[in-house]
Amino acid sequence: MASHVQELIRTGAERTDRALERLLPSPDTAPHSIHRAMRHSVFAGGKRLRPVLCFEAWRLASRFAPSAIPAEQAAIELGAAIEMLHTYSLIHDDLPALDNDDLRRGQPTCHKVFGDAIAILAGDALQTLAFHTIARLDCPAITTIDILKEIASAVGTGVGPAPAEVDFDFPAGQAPGMIGGQVVDLESEGQPPTAALVEQIHRAKTGALITVSIVAGGHIAGASHDTLDRLRIFGGNAGLAFQIVDDVLDITEESAQLGKTAGKDTAVTKATWPAVYGLPDGVARSLADAQQLIADAFAAVEPFGTAADDLKAIAQYLVDRKN
Amino acid sequence: MASHVQELIRTGAERTDRALERLLPSPDTAPHSIHRAMRHSVFAGGKRLRPVLCFEAWRLASRFAPSAIPAEQAAIELGAAIEMLHTYSLIHDDLPALDNDDLRRGQPTCHKVFGDAIAILAGDALQTLAFHTIARLDCPAITTIDILKEIASAVGTGVGPAPAEVDFDFPAGQAPGMIGGQVVDLESEGQPPTAALVEQIHRAKTGALITVSIVAGGHIAGASHDTLDRLRIFGGNAGLAFQIVDDVLDITEESAQLGKTAGKDTAVTKATWPAVYGLPDGVARSLADAQQLIADAFAAVEPFGTAADDLKAIAQYLVDRKN
Repeated sequence: MASHVQELIRTGAERTDRALERLLPSPDTAPHSIHRAMRHSVFAGGKRLRPVLCFEAWRLASRFAPSAIPAEQAAIELGAAIEMLHTYSLIHDDLPALDNDDLRRGQPTCHKVFGDAIAILAGDALQTLAFHTIARLDCPAITTIDILKEIASAVGTGVGPAPAEVDFDFPAGQAPGMIGGQVVDLESEGQPPTAALVEQIHRAKTGALITVSIVAGGHIAGASHDTLDRLRIFGGNAGLAFQIVDDVLDITEESAQLGKTAGKDTAVTKATWPAVYGLPDGVARSLADAQQLIADAFAAVEPFGTAADDLKAIAQYLVDRKN
Repeated sequence: MASHVQELIRTGAERTDRALERLLPSPDTAPHSIHRAMRHSVFAGGKRLRPVLCFEAWRLASRFAPSAIPAEQAAIELGAAIEMLHTYSLIHDDLPALDNDDLRRGQPTCHKVFGDAIAILAGDALQTLAFHTIARLDCPAITTIDILKEIASAVGTGVGPAPAEVDFDFPAGQAPGMIGGQVVDLESEGQPPTAALVEQIHRAKTGALITVSIVAGGHIAGASHDTLDRLRIFGGNAGLAFQIVDDVLDITEESAQLGKTAGKDTAVTKATWPAVYGLPDGVARSLADAQQLIADAFAAVEPFGTAADDLKAIAQYLVDRKN
């Protein structure tokens, strides 16, 4: 029998998939190759964790926003846009010039099926479509702009510390951003990973998009500054915990289960959390860190009481998952 | 002595460069490599024709918008954002997986200096920064959103016909878009170029971004639907004329003058306008087509009288230029 959190994730993923099906150009629309390449990667079996977090953050914040307006559809489409950004980053990361991965979630990567040129352009187009989707959200214009600024920061080149309690309209390069994390990760290859370096990479490369999924969900609900700050702290901790567990799974799981080459990250001395501690007890200490981060995340949403239970359950799932 | 149009372009380029200098992350901000790569390509000697067209369209429309508000700074930053999008597309086009060009405007291309991985990510980051810059424009929120939707369409995967007099909020894939044109261009390599195919590629790959530069300038001025429609027709014709002249210059100019390998397009039977007519009279007939398109563009802005003179002078320059 599926647990409550499994149900939340399953229904959230279905909701997201329906939106993505509607928002992505049909595979029968010219130019066919790029539309098929975009769909190949978007529908390659992702768990839609970012859209689910976005939706649950919206649902939570809706209960505390004084002027909450019904915006369920906007919350769903926002989640779909974030999933497009996540997919674009995976397509480009997998390219021969970057991580050179042939498999992703057990399926051939975009460039293996469609070639490098179409894969580069499919990633580009998914980024464009994500911003287009956000611009078209059915919500107040000022909310859309707040979300656009948050998300553009989160997928940009910044590698600075996560600003938990400041205004979100960071100057370019000052907030942690996905591309920035990717660059630092690339450039630090072969260097001995330090705790500070790995945390910086993780907070930027993975954490920023997870955090903004949750914060933007709050924006859609018209959340107060205090609520947004709490969601940002929650997201920052949950996002880092997610990536630590990802590092651990990469080491402990078999290749077949994960659908990618297990242990590959450590083999090339990439920056991973367990590598900072060293093996073998790096795994146990990493998992303990992840659990502590989740506890910190929970503390941030304590004032919301039981209304935060579903969001908390999903965050707990992020660190308890086995794949 | 510089002509009036040369002065318009020179001052417009300087204005754009100052904005880009301010908007791009400093080369001393970590991660350095990507910020230096972004600047390498953005400051590689582009003429800033799109920002100049955007600014002049804003200046023209401002004179006819009943509720015009001072928005010069927004018009300049919008132009800078469009130049970022143009530069991102050039960086990705030049990659070995696409056009494999070592030189652009006489300088080594981004991937030749920084490697393929950083070049891919620098293109990605310029797209992100462009949308971020637009989201931060100092203009009414609803105007920003109109512009974002227009621009996301113009750089997307669509290859449909340019809709001159319909609402601009096209569904994904229905309006001509830059990436769509790039894909059709790639896929038609080796095929004999037909007039319809080349026009489709040019209107999507080059024309859409030039058109939206002009239309978005009108939006910043709060232009009426009629004015926006006229600017859209003007831009569609001027953009196609620009690319036809580009094709001609590629054939007739020496490698050293253009800073890229001259004649390369025809050598691989790429889709060019003169190739449709066949050489040698393809060049003369192409130039005649470009002049006719400019005449059509001028007709669309006829009702604006002499207020359109500067915008017209720049469009005329696009087809009269020798490099």
